Amino acid sequence: MTVNGHSSFTDVDRKAVNTIRVLGADTVRKANSGHPGAPIGCAPMAHVLFTKYLKANPTNSHWLNRDRFILSNGHGSALQYVMLHLLGYKMSIDDLKSFRQMGSNTPGHPEVHLTDGVEVTTGPLGQGISMGVGLAAAERHLAATFNKPDFPVVDNNVFVMIGDGCFQEGVACEAASLAGHLKLGNLIVLYDANNIQIDGEIDLTFTEDVNARHESYGWHTQTVEDGDSDLDGIAKAIEAAIAVKDKPSLITIRTTIGYGSQNQGTEKVHGVPLEPKDIAEMKKKFGFDPEKHFHVEEDVYELYAAVRAKGVQAEKEWNALYSKFAEAYPAEAAEFERRLIKKELPKDFEKLLPVYDPSGPQVATRVASLDCLNALTPVFPELFGGSADLTGSNSTGYKGKTEFQPDGNKYGNYAGRYVRFGVREHGMAAFSNGVAAYGGIIPFNATYLNFITYAAGAIRLSALSRHQVLYITTHDSIAVGEDGRTHQASENIPWLRALPNLYLFRPADGNETAGSYAQALKFREGPSVFAFSKQNLPRLSGTSADKVAFGAYILSDVPKPDVVLVATGSEVSLIVETAKLLASEGIQARVVSAPCLELFAKQSLDYQRSVLGEGIPVVSAEAAGTFGWQKWAHVSHGVDWFGASSPYELIFKKFGLVPDVHAQRVKKAIEFYKIRPVPALIYDAQELLGKVVFDD
Amino acid sequence: MTVNGHSSFTDVDRKAVNTIRVLGADTVRKANSGHPGAPIGCAPMAHVLFTKYLKANPTNSHWLNRDRFILSNGHGSALQYVMLHLLGYKMSIDDLKSFRQMGSNTPGHPEVHLTDGVEVTTGPLGQGISMGVGLAAAERHLAATFNKPDFPVVDNNVFVMIGDGCFQEGVACEAASLAGHLKLGNLIVLYDANNIQIDGEIDLTFTEDVNARHESYGWHTQTVEDGDSDLDGIAKAIEAAIAVKDKPSLITIRTTIGYGSQNQGTEKVHGVPLEPKDIAEMKKKFGFDPEKHFHVEEDVYELYAAVRAKGVQAEKEWNALYSKFAEAYPAEAAEFERRLIKKELPKDFEKLLPVYDPSGPQVATRVASLDCLNALTPVFPELFGGSADLTGSNSTGYKGKTEFQPDGNKYGNYAGRYVRFGVREHGMAAFSNGVAAYGGIIPFNATYLNFITYAAGAIRLSALSRHQVLYITTHDSIAVGEDGRTHQASENIPWLRALPNLYLFRPADGNETAGSYAQALKFREGPSVFAFSKQNLPRLSGTSADKVAFGAYILSDVPKPDVVLVATGSEVSLIVETAKLLASEGIQARVVSAPCLELFAKQSLDYQRSVLGEGIPVVSAEAAGTFGWQKWAHVSHGVDWFGASSPYELIFKKFGLVPDVHAQRVKKAIEFYKIRPVPALIYDAQELLGKVVFDD
Repeated sequence: MTVNGHSSFTDVDRKAVNTIRVLGADTVRKANSGHPGAPIGCAPMAHVLFTKYLKANPTNSHWLNRDRFILSNGHGSALQYVMLHLLGYKMSIDDLKSFRQMGSNTPGHPEVHLTDGVEVTTGPLGQGISMGVGLAAAERHLAATFNKPDFPVVDNNVFVMIGDGCFQEGVACEAASLAGHLKLGNLIVLYDANNIQIDGEIDLTFTEDVNARHESYGWHTQTVEDGDSDLDGIAKAIEAAIAVKDKPSLITIRTTIGYGSQNQGTEKVHGVPLEPKDIAEMKKKFGFDPEKHFHVEEDVYELYAAVRAKGVQAEKEWNALYSKFAEAYPAEAAEFERRLIKKELPKDFEKLLPVYDPSGPQVATRVASLDCLNALTPVFPELFGGSADLTGSNSTGYKGKTEFQPDGNKYGNYAGRYVRFGVREHGMAAFSNGVAAYGGIIPFNATYLNFITYAAGAIRLSALSRHQVLYITTHDSIAVGEDGRTHQASENIPWLRALPNLYLFRPADGNETAGSYAQALKFREGPSVFAFSKQNLPRLSGTSADKVAFGAYILSDVPKPDVVLVATGSEVSLIVETAKLLASEGIQARVVSAPCLELFAKQSLDYQRSVLGEGIPVVSAEAAGTFGWQKWAHVSHGVDWFGASSPYELIFKKFGLVPDVHAQRVKKAIEFYKIRPVPALIYDAQELLGKVVFDD
Repeated sequence: MTVNGHSSFTDVDRKAVNTIRVLGADTVRKANSGHPGAPIGCAPMAHVLFTKYLKANPTNSHWLNRDRFILSNGHGSALQYVMLHLLGYKMSIDDLKSFRQMGSNTPGHPEVHLTDGVEVTTGPLGQGISMGVGLAAAERHLAATFNKPDFPVVDNNVFVMIGDGCFQEGVACEAASLAGHLKLGNLIVLYDANNIQIDGEIDLTFTEDVNARHESYGWHTQTVEDGDSDLDGIAKAIEAAIAVKDKPSLITIRTTIGYGSQNQGTEKVHGVPLEPKDIAEMKKKFGFDPEKHFHVEEDVYELYAAVRAKGVQAEKEWNALYSKFAEAYPAEAAEFERRLIKKELPKDFEKLLPVYDPSGPQVATRVASLDCLNALTPVFPELFGGSADLTGSNSTGYKGKTEFQPDGNKYGNYAGRYVRFGVREHGMAAFSNGVAAYGGIIPFNATYLNFITYAAGAIRLSALSRHQVLYITTHDSIAVGEDGRTHQASENIPWLRALPNLYLFRPADGNETAGSYAQALKFREGPSVFAFSKQNLPRLSGTSADKVAFGAYILSDVPKPDVVLVATGSEVSLIVETAKLLASEGIQARVVSAPCLELFAKQSLDYQRSVLGEGIPVVSAEAAGTFGWQKWAHVSHGVDWFGASSPYELIFKKFGLVPDVHAQRVKKAIEFYKIRPVPALIYDAQELLGKVVFDD
């Protein structure tokens, strides 16, 4: 596809730019909340980009081969909403008037699942550009995978608008370094260099040379000195950036924040609506009627209608190209459609997952995870990812993996599927969100469980934005052993459980590992985190891949249990042994494995009661913080401190997570409840809550 | 103080270098766990640095004016332990033999609270260098504060050793950018550029120009091509770096990982002990007896003894200088000693904290926090910090603040105390850890509660390393309102509560805010996080600064409560109103405010029972995830989803956190327990746990 060549701009263009400015000001003013500075200051670059270079069809925001636009400085959301309106997306003037109101499609920061034409959720700084790197990588990978000579069915750019704040965030530094390594020439970043951040002028704290830094990463850089009015200069720079195919591009565009406002060029216009009088003056300055609000003149609408028509035409041409492609390459087209349009998983993939017989040797769940990857990757071409420089430890180096590297690189090319993220956990997670946002790919990534909090900002966005990202974490407890306290974050499991719309799987053995993969792959509307063991674990009798779907299930039962023992992951074998010890003393224990408490919480109350029992004390064991277990157990044992550095068996002993100590503790619990009523857990946790609809 | 000038090295120096290498190899081999590659490869730079340039007294690791050394690549811990042994710190050969064993002072990664001579805890990549920036800033600030003409009582450098991994981490990028802005000439970084990371050669993923990047931040950079044997080259570079006073320095030193091993120069020597045969060959190659383990020849010990003697002498000279300083400036010396030696807080500071009369106007707790800062900062010169570009929103811009900036900067100088962190949350937290590690300063920092997870890696280290860091977070709930879901992390409060050795304060009003500051300032052995409201809150009757010490307390009581309502922060006024509504229907409710559940958990069981009652249902309300509340309440209400974008009152309504809805829910709870026994909460949570000693 081609985009318009460089052309000079008319008075209507300049009127359109000013229209963006006053619409942005009106929108923020009406909400009495929001950020007018960026929308006003970025109007020129937005106009140039959207009218001349961004290939998109506003009447079909899901056109697969559209260019992607990301507003990394998401607080400038009014700009994006105004552009969507002018271009003819599903964004009415009334929607602009509902900016930042309950239930509107114009929330304070752009949210991908709420608004037509928004590609990713932004606002938390640094995330947008980092997702842009993922989107660009996804495009390069899908292009390398599907394109044929004369059939560039995947062929688009990723444009990112960004402010100073994003550039200061480490996640953006990580992603930019990776983008330079990957030579993502389809990534073009427009930097709104307005010299102002919330605290004042950026030289209070940010005096680095941003262009030079990006050059050190291998980026192409340019500077446009007058971003307030030099539309041709902006256009020329974007064209030059598009022409550079083997490097990501940064265009530093010097602008005046809140251009036209009486406080232009200061932090005062950053995050507070302009006063009505100020807006009126601004409108006069731009030649508009100060009495008119949310007003767009006809010739401006007409200009954008022409852009829209061009977009409709572009999709039409692509559809024609795609038809011919599908004719010439029916198998490839079927796969393209499965992945990108129907979004179907490969048929019957569960049947390929490994099954572990209890008689076999011990296996770490991280190794079982590798078995799963080995089984799945051949039939799941959409599995795409890697590790933050822990390929061996995370057991993500599956058989026959091909390296995702820039074309011409000695290790691989863009058709490869294994990503070397480097020690960049946060960038890795944000990259994965971008890949997921592109579509047609299920990204996975990996690190130690301890270090997943480095990526917390991006993981929250995975959940909020409903991105299917598979987070493989290994070394999931004090069993890390000798590496010590710095590598044993007992609080990470509670944190992940507290995060909405995320599944945490902590499987007990190989079979549950396989079941966890099946569930995570079927959960298309959010991220899953796997917590896998470093150490070998026994193969357990009665574990089941299928039962992982229930979140928790009875592993072994007795006719009249005195106690219910529940555990996850490596501690399931602990409670199995504990139950044997107790049985030798005539105490009958039910054993429950709970690989995913989030899935368990979704089961019927009847099922939950059938597992945890009624009137029987429930005792949990997990080599993690006990925080939150009180919902499911009467007594909880775990690791409520920092761990230790030693061979791991001694650390388990230190925390009492060994069968003899655990059996003693369980007996105490039974004794305690002999003379007291055993409170119902299931009732307590659920029936009393008022109904809140979680649908947005 | 001066350090040795550049001098050429002898054969004993070269023998010492090889001694470090084989001792490192022996140490890792004995533990059968650890990372030999870095200790072996970095031996030359370590030897040069420690023998010629690092000003320190091994017989007194706490000498205040010592240079600070940080092993940012903490997995190379064996190197640091070997150096500490050779130099004569409290590190015996037996300690080296106990590497990575339970209870030893030689854990897998260096931990400041366990080992004499270790300045900060490292291992999580990127943290060490970022703390180094904080240490260097602390030195510059204390020097500017205390030094007098002819009395440079604070005058030291910060040396950081670092590998590729740390440079890939965003936190290190943030901190390095800030260090460049701050012109921290006392920060000197030695980069072990061995071209290898865990996955293989770094060009798999890391192809940026590290020196050029740091130049873009304003750093001075150099390269030493042969870091394996060119001791003079390393020395010359360190001298040049020391001579540069207005820029941080990066020295890229090209080395061979695992130099001397049969697998040198490959990832195979990174993280697995060398085979005994390999070590034997290495020893032969270096001219050592392959049969001897943990052996140090006398002349090598003598060389380090001379270095130690030099260090003893350096402290002696400083002590003399300090005595004269104390004579000439007794008031300054008394303050120096209060802050850095006795580590006392200003006397009776609690009396200065603001008191809020219930009759006054509503006040947001973030504004009450500003009142506290205004009251405290004049008498607490050790309060030093700022915000991640949210000074206004976080209300940290206290009266009379002076800007911490490089000398000569238009905004301020090193004597200033207000730090402009920029939008660098993770770097800010790690910087704060470094400042705390220096001593004599209580660092604070600030961002929105939503974004504190960006800094999770460093916050965990605050807690693990016992650093007193005050984390001010504001906009602590859905009351953020219009900014929407991207800014309303309901999971962050549960996460912080799950993190050991950290206090989370969520005060209900101004008085509790004052009490939270008092408690946080008195908690010298770990971090505190404040969660402050954006919105105005009523001044409540009965709140007390003093009672915050109990963590939770009865705000208002009735003779025979039907229910206990408990809440934190902004929801305390909700339950006060709810109690009134219930009273109007004849239902009697006790109202409990719980500003700090961690402090409450430390109270006696009797006290806990006296607050939460026995046999009475407890219902909690908090505008955060309910995860974990099950420990303290029978029924919990909160925000178990992502929030919304709208004026905040509507969001509270959406989640049912308004008096009429909450009253309905409370009545359901009372009804539920009318026909069932009310389980004891205090017993359940505590008495059944086996005793685990949390002392390391």
